[in-house]
Amino acid sequence: MMRTRPLKVALLGCGVVGSEVARIMTTHADDLTARIGAPVELAGVAVRRPDRVREGIDPALVTTDATALVKRGDIDVVVEVIGGIEPARTLITTAFEHGASVVSANKALLAQDGAALHAAAEEHDKDLYYEAAVAGAIPLIRPLRESLAGDKINRVMGIVNGTTNFILDKMDSTGAGYQEALDEATALGYAEADPTADVEGFDAAAKAAILAGISFHTRVRLDDVYREGMTEVTAADFASAKEMGCTIKLLAICERAADGASVTARVHPAMIPLNHPLASVRGAYNAVFVESDAAGQLMFYGPGAGGSPTASAVLGDLVAVCRNRIGGATGPGESAYAALPVSPMGDVVTRYHISLDVADKPGVLAQVATVFAEHGVSIDTVRQSGKDGEASLVVVTHRASDAALTGTVEALRKLDTVRGVASIMRVEGE
Amino acid sequence: MMRTRPLKVALLGCGVVGSEVARIMTTHADDLTARIGAPVELAGVAVRRPDRVREGIDPALVTTDATALVKRGDIDVVVEVIGGIEPARTLITTAFEHGASVVSANKALLAQDGAALHAAAEEHDKDLYYEAAVAGAIPLIRPLRESLAGDKINRVMGIVNGTTNFILDKMDSTGAGYQEALDEATALGYAEADPTADVEGFDAAAKAAILAGISFHTRVRLDDVYREGMTEVTAADFASAKEMGCTIKLLAICERAADGASVTARVHPAMIPLNHPLASVRGAYNAVFVESDAAGQLMFYGPGAGGSPTASAVLGDLVAVCRNRIGGATGPGESAYAALPVSPMGDVVTRYHISLDVADKPGVLAQVATVFAEHGVSIDTVRQSGKDGEASLVVVTHRASDAALTGTVEALRKLDTVRGVASIMRVEGE
Ligand SMILES: NC(=O)c1ccc[n+]([C@@H]2O[C@H](COP(=O)([O-])OP(=O)(O)OC[C@H]3O[C@@H](n4cnc5c(N)ncnc54)[C@H](OP(=O)(O)O)[C@@H]3O)[C@@H](O)[C@H]2O)c1
Ligand SMILES: NC(=O)c1ccc[n+]([C@@H]2O[C@H](COP(=O)([O-])OP(=O)(O)OC[C@H]3O[C@@H](n4cnc5c(N)ncnc54)[C@H](OP(=O)(O)O)[C@@H]3O)[C@@H](O)[C@H]2O)c1
Repeated sequence: MMRTRPLKVALLGCGVVGSEVARIMTTHADDLTARIGAPVELAGVAVRRPDRVREGIDPALVTTDATALVKRGDIDVVVEVIGGIEPARTLITTAFEHGASVVSANKALLAQDGAALHAAAEEHDKDLYYEAAVAGAIPLIRPLRESLAGDKINRVMGIVNGTTNFILDKMDSTGAGYQEALDEATALGYAEADPTADVEGFDAAAKAAILAGISFHTRVRLDDVYREGMTEVTAADFASAKEMGCTIKLLAICERAADGASVTARVHPAMIPLNHPLASVRGAYNAVFVESDAAGQLMFYGPGAGGSPTASAVLGDLVAVCRNRIGGATGPGESAYAALPVSPMGDVVTRYHISLDVADKPGVLAQVATVFAEHGVSIDTVRQSGKDGEASLVVVTHRASDAALTGTVEALRKLDTVRGVASIMRVEGE
Repeated sequence: MMRTRPLKVALLGCGVVGSEVARIMTTHADDLTARIGAPVELAGVAVRRPDRVREGIDPALVTTDATALVKRGDIDVVVEVIGGIEPARTLITTAFEHGASVVSANKALLAQDGAALHAAAEEHDKDLYYEAAVAGAIPLIRPLRESLAGDKINRVMGIVNGTTNFILDKMDSTGAGYQEALDEATALGYAEADPTADVEGFDAAAKAAILAGISFHTRVRLDDVYREGMTEVTAADFASAKEMGCTIKLLAICERAADGASVTARVHPAMIPLNHPLASVRGAYNAVFVESDAAGQLMFYGPGAGGSPTASAVLGDLVAVCRNRIGGATGPGESAYAALPVSPMGDVVTRYHISLDVADKPGVLAQVATVFAEHGVSIDTVRQSGKDGEASLVVVTHRASDAALTGTVEALRKLDTVRGVASIMRVEGE
């Protein structure tokens, strides 16, 4: 099926990811031609600063008018690696209107407007692919949408943000505090100057929304994702985790309820056992653990970010979209037929590790235990330690709903004998 | 694109895998319909023993005449889960001739006759999918062929046989010998009555041939794969591995040569460092580590066998093939355009761990070291230990070709002072 007319690709954005996409398109041109069945040609590159020197890019291709580029009408595939909501969103819909298919790495946009973008793609019978939007180089969207298409996914639990994993891994291995580990991540280029999107879990929440949508064939909006950052994880939390044979990871967790009738999606730090495959994911690596009815437990591991890894995922999509175009077909679009309700965080059921600062006097444990019992939260283990009138209680619960746990903690705070709730950490992966 | 005419599926084989395929097709019928865009209907089930009770299967569908079933002409997809070369091969080509696409889990057949089967599929413009043939439930073929289609794969190194991983894991964790661990694997159903295909590496070699072919866009025949079983791995080897901070795994390794101009594929036991992601793959699990130019290091992990996990992979393919049929398209076929030469084992470059039984007298080390030097094999470390006139030398080399190592060992055996070569083990993943 080799044909000679090249497929024309418009590259929107030529930064960390875009420059690598352009580079590989040039250096691997022969391979891409063989795999696609036709040559691919870079037809234009839209950027903000046209005068920047861009190695390997023909200056004649560079434009600041991205809109004109996607409206040209002869573009086969638009690769959107600008990021952010606008102008990316309008450019993508304009691309569909003008006959192009789209490959994007834009998790923020996909999480916020995935449904509308998919609808636009479908209306114009075009492809929208975005493997790079979740977990960088790791093939994940395609395995979930296609390889597991005959299976029923019950749980997706992943480390989907490299910056926070780097920080937590540092804290775990060196005993450093959060700020110290963040400073090192910044110095090494693993954290941005403003790390909010990463450390507050916004980036992971966008990915959780995308993953939950695909896994459960249900639209999951960004607002549906419970989100808690990892800025309050302390060295003391790591010490507690170690005592339990655990480490702490920032996890994105998408779950089907036990009765199958609803789903949840959340991002928060959690303790996981050291023998869980996710526990040994080091540095800025990402990994996603998937549980399904038939396949059982799967894990996908690799670099979650970086120009060249992300470009690998973009190019895999580019090849697929080009092949679809040549074959006159489109790949799988949005699948939201299940339309399951997304339950609030209160309905999530898991285990908890709670550290309390309490008065060091008789009867405190009984008081505390009563509060747990009254809220229907069953205690697995309690550890008391105390000296000099100060004492601490570490409670690990059995599985209970987040709502019940929240009620328990509120009641505990009201006890005279409880001086403070030092930390509450969910325990996952057991 | 919902249409009402159901797609007709012929199931060839209804054993461990086939019965699970049939079960999921029934229990998940609604999901499959939604994901495919049309209902799928089990149109016939070919078996050897028609009178066996098969739960959930309409006896009217059961036949012993698989040939007539694939010749019916109204079959959309043939799912081949009989196994072995014949009649599977003829049934698959007959299926293509009569208008069906094919999903198969048959690694032995794909490794031996993949090129001919792909050619038959292409001739009739049909799909041939076989995700289940390598590493069971783990999405691997699709990520390699599609997600990494824009990247350049340099190395695929995997644990692709669950039986042998179970045995080696047992030996590692309990100190058991090979036979004892094999007996336990057999008792627990992880090893077949005749374990030859697993323990001698035939099963892994078939998978290595398939993986190398896909990864390097080059036909790799089963005969091209160097194969060494794991029946001679001893408790002493595990002790040596531990001393080096390693464990032992049976690995399938497909590599592009450093100059990119040729490839190799091989299966053999090897030491790998404990901190390598493959080292912590326990029990009967499989995992495949992939290194590529742009993506870097990826790993795919999950159950490598079992009826239900394997059925998950078969059904993912079934959904894809059905969708292709409805869309009037076919998925990616064989990609062998690179046609790189497959080099013999002698060209493989790696490190080696060699245990020698030697005479306990002065000058032995110098003699041995001279032999290594004469063959151009550079020594990394040597450890001598001895008592009562018996001594042993453990040599770990730098990277050297297999040919150079073989020459070295031959020469060592001729030395009077070398009483025996207790073991030679490759060291990978550093
Ligand atoms: N970096 C990663 O590791 C990674 C990983 C996964 C996904 N992603 C996603 O990939 C996308 C791109 O990320 P990145 O790291 O490559 O970003 P980046 O380095 O900031 O590059 C953004 C590019 O977009 C261009 N641009 C910005 N506004 C524009 C506009 N209005 N019109 C035309 N061009 C415009 C910029 O032009 P100038 O060059 O002139 O500034 C720059 O070339 C984002 O969606 C991100 O979430 C990134
Ligand atoms: N089992 C696994 O975990 C696994 C994992 C990955 C891949 N695979 C692959 O999947 C395939 C099937 O494996 P399996 O474990 O399911 O094998 P199995 O349990 O032995 O089942 C084989 C089935 O094929 C039928 N059969 C045998 N010869 C036949 C013939 N001439 N005509 C029609 N039907 C015939 C048998 O009929 P009866 O029922 O009447 O005996 C049986 O139903 C093999 O290629 C295997 O390599 C298996």
